[in-house]
Amino acid sequence: MTMETQNDFLKERRKFSPITPEILGDFSAVLCTQGNKPEVSSEIKKLFPKSLNQGFVSLQKGHCNHLYPLTVGIVFSGGQAPGGHNVVSGLFDAIKRIHLDSKVIGFLQGPDGIIKGEYRELEKQEIAMYRNTGGFDLIGSGRTKIETKEQLERAAITVKALALDGLVIVGGDDSNTNAAILAEYFLQKSLTTKVIGVPKTIDGDLKNEYIESSFGFDTACKVYGEVIGNIARDAISAKKYYHFIKLMGRSASHIALECALQVQPTLTLISEEIREKKYTLQRVIDELSRLIDQRAKAGKNYGIIVIPEGLIEFIPEINELISLLNQIIAKHGGQASLEERIEIVHRSMPSSLATIFASFPKEIQSQLLLDRDPHGNVQVSKIATEKLLIHLVSLQLQNRAKFVAVDHFFGYEGRCGYPSNFDATYCYALGVFTALLIRDGFTGYMSCIKNLSQDPSQWECFGLPLTTLLHLEERHGTRKPVIQKALVDLKGAPFQHFTQNREKWALEDCFKFPSPIQFFGPSFITNSISLTLKLEQK
Amino acid sequence: MTMETQNDFLKERRKFSPITPEILGDFSAVLCTQGNKPEVSSEIKKLFPKSLNQGFVSLQKGHCNHLYPLTVGIVFSGGQAPGGHNVVSGLFDAIKRIHLDSKVIGFLQGPDGIIKGEYRELEKQEIAMYRNTGGFDLIGSGRTKIETKEQLERAAITVKALALDGLVIVGGDDSNTNAAILAEYFLQKSLTTKVIGVPKTIDGDLKNEYIESSFGFDTACKVYGEVIGNIARDAISAKKYYHFIKLMGRSASHIALECALQVQPTLTLISEEIREKKYTLQRVIDELSRLIDQRAKAGKNYGIIVIPEGLIEFIPEINELISLLNQIIAKHGGQASLEERIEIVHRSMPSSLATIFASFPKEIQSQLLLDRDPHGNVQVSKIATEKLLIHLVSLQLQNRAKFVAVDHFFGYEGRCGYPSNFDATYCYALGVFTALLIRDGFTGYMSCIKNLSQDPSQWECFGLPLTTLLHLEERHGTRKPVIQKALVDLKGAPFQHFTQNREKWALEDCFKFPSPIQFFGPSFITNSISLTLKLEQK
Repeated sequence: MTMETQNDFLKERRKFSPITPEILGDFSAVLCTQGNKPEVSSEIKKLFPKSLNQGFVSLQKGHCNHLYPLTVGIVFSGGQAPGGHNVVSGLFDAIKRIHLDSKVIGFLQGPDGIIKGEYRELEKQEIAMYRNTGGFDLIGSGRTKIETKEQLERAAITVKALALDGLVIVGGDDSNTNAAILAEYFLQKSLTTKVIGVPKTIDGDLKNEYIESSFGFDTACKVYGEVIGNIARDAISAKKYYHFIKLMGRSASHIALECALQVQPTLTLISEEIREKKYTLQRVIDELSRLIDQRAKAGKNYGIIVIPEGLIEFIPEINELISLLNQIIAKHGGQASLEERIEIVHRSMPSSLATIFASFPKEIQSQLLLDRDPHGNVQVSKIATEKLLIHLVSLQLQNRAKFVAVDHFFGYEGRCGYPSNFDATYCYALGVFTALLIRDGFTGYMSCIKNLSQDPSQWECFGLPLTTLLHLEERHGTRKPVIQKALVDLKGAPFQHFTQNREKWALEDCFKFPSPIQFFGPSFITNSISLTLKLEQK
Repeated sequence: MTMETQNDFLKERRKFSPITPEILGDFSAVLCTQGNKPEVSSEIKKLFPKSLNQGFVSLQKGHCNHLYPLTVGIVFSGGQAPGGHNVVSGLFDAIKRIHLDSKVIGFLQGPDGIIKGEYRELEKQEIAMYRNTGGFDLIGSGRTKIETKEQLERAAITVKALALDGLVIVGGDDSNTNAAILAEYFLQKSLTTKVIGVPKTIDGDLKNEYIESSFGFDTACKVYGEVIGNIARDAISAKKYYHFIKLMGRSASHIALECALQVQPTLTLISEEIREKKYTLQRVIDELSRLIDQRAKAGKNYGIIVIPEGLIEFIPEINELISLLNQIIAKHGGQASLEERIEIVHRSMPSSLATIFASFPKEIQSQLLLDRDPHGNVQVSKIATEKLLIHLVSLQLQNRAKFVAVDHFFGYEGRCGYPSNFDATYCYALGVFTALLIRDGFTGYMSCIKNLSQDPSQWECFGLPLTTLLHLEERHGTRKPVIQKALVDLKGAPFQHFTQNREKWALEDCFKFPSPIQFFGPSFITNSISLTLKLEQK
């Protein structure tokens, strides 16, 4: 970023100084393990012999004697999330405070940068330009995993050559699994590089009894909330369109739920509920159509329908349809044209599924039959669910109600926004605490913070042994360690609040219109937290 | 809006008190016509005999003796634009200041509300809730024009029944033409209701030597700028996608140009330039492909491509193709299936056009052949230009460059955002000045403000005779008065700034990342104006 590409806002926002938790004020405190060591399965024990038997880590009063400089590498892994640059800033400030000769090395374009040895030392001046900004553009990101023997060896060569005291992996569930694997590998190879994971993902699915929230979720949802609110206001002004809005978030519906709480749309589909209730696609269409009919009777031919990205995989029969399509095409149709594929599908499928497939719009049929991932499978995340639902609802309604729909998909719009005060502060503190974990010699940990709904001065930092999060799962034919993605908890307070209010929202237009994220002005506006977190910690 | 649907931001933002131009501080000033009467054509003279011969109106020091209450109706006409609620607030505050018993009547859901006599008196309490909010949801909007003899008569009945002193039409070019027609009609029928237009449209195409900017353009572009900036940041972080972003704005490319100035994307297509240079579609594709190739050689397989909504109508051959399609389908294919229509098109078209049509993706072919407006014509605005360009560029590139593209369309996202300080202030002042125009007996005028790039205290209000803006044009077979839509001026400073910089932007990634609109904090951030206006008035 050159001076030229700055703007007035940026000059001001860069001055924002995140409040750090009180406990981080005292760098002479030392980190200690404490409490019971968490249980892990015997399979995990076998895979992680060296990094096992680690307890939770917290800061204790004491006197730290650490006197030498640290060299710490950092990498962004996976999709962008607002706040990443503040993890770097926090880490940088902390290791410089530990020793002025400490260095932060940024690996370029994700884990590939570690494998290929592509990196750059990050200087004070450069980091200053990126404080409180969104995106991962300081060093880029990528999706490669460090998994194969060769990749692991090359990673070891890189960290050794740089004499890294620590390697910080900023990522989601897969990347933190990868951090655990690297930590174990380095221990086995007697390397002294400590590996620490930082919980990142806008999807909000890296969450459990230990992790209250991943960073980026707050900002991304606020950006989506702003534009959905604007669209809702357009809908009740013009009173002529149903807006079907699909939201990023992979399998889990956390983003859709948070946006529902923020905007109070006409209807929000929550994948986890649809699976729990074993809804068919027809049932979903019926419910949508019934609501649209009912509103039409009240003279309301408009509304906001929010759809989570993962919906389609949560409808059992569609799951079955997709897996059958994968098999059929693999067996019969690798080289066939679209028409031949349609023909083959009709021949080879049970009629119930063939009927569902035939009801899909041409565009989606061809996407399902032609658009394949490298494994030859349907690319579920690319299915235009919002268009599919409009098409089917429209067929179902016939001319019963006046139904004109507009589709939207929001994802990239929110992953690189300027981080909210919450995310800016959270990330900065994660960065600082990560430096202390490395200083005090811990590896195979995730940097974590709890009590996030309280004032940042009251937040509590702790180190979570990554193995605690792991269990084995079948992936492409082999059992691999994974971190369970957290789905929306149907018994949790956010979903309960949603179900208690949704009938009213469906009929009475209770839209709220979230503002664009505000960075200046009253603290009750600038320091607001996600409604999910607020309800969860009420 | 109930108290329940409020949010913390709103409570604070409602307190924002727009600065009004100094001249509006003194309500004892009177309005006078001044200067030369503007020239209008003889055809316009014939159509507007009563409302002709009016000069520009400005405020003069004096002593106003107006002592009785005013009843003023207001209507929102056409698409939403941020700031409309502040026109109502300004109007309300001003007529209450003129006389405490004055009333504002809101016509519901657009001009239909006037025709059908559907309205509501707007009370202080209600208006208070909508100050500085986006959207038109206070009274709704609609697209009906008051044109036929019956519609005009019914409008006259409504304004007479309400004994309206004034009728304020908040709208774009068509709605302001309609305001001129109503003003003339009321004069001819000796009604005392004054008709005043207010220049609204996010598209920015209601602009000329008299009108510096329509309201809503500023806010809408800032919302689009925010999300495009976020996507640009995502693009340079992940470095793997080309984002093709289509922006609302009807024919003119003002929104695309403003967003280009704000974000400095890789490439922005400006329809007006493409028409001026008589580019073929192939030429546009060539240019895009060449740039993508060139960037690929520099290792850059990502970028931001901004496309104005109206692009397709500005490419001469596509215009020809569409008009031929309209003729062919009207003649041969009214009832034909998609396959039959494709067949007919191939038979009836010159091969050059048939080749272009055949190169389009199936989805767009069927949209062109099946999706028709009430007149049986292709719905040009619904053509997914962003998808068409991705498809054709992808074919052209073959495997020369790594090209993965994502499409976006932004429109509804920006039409109802919370108005920026600029729009909130502009609209409030327009509302106040409108009240004075009505008080002092002017009709057939547009409420206008100049020197908009200066501090609001220095803005100058004036009344612009609507007939000045009119000329006759062929529409659906008859010559009708219309206001010329302003296209991007290729000699104007904004476009010149763009052309002077675009080569650099194309190759060097000079992205800027506009912040979400800020409403609190330093004035140089909250009171910023559009770059278009800034450059035009430099």
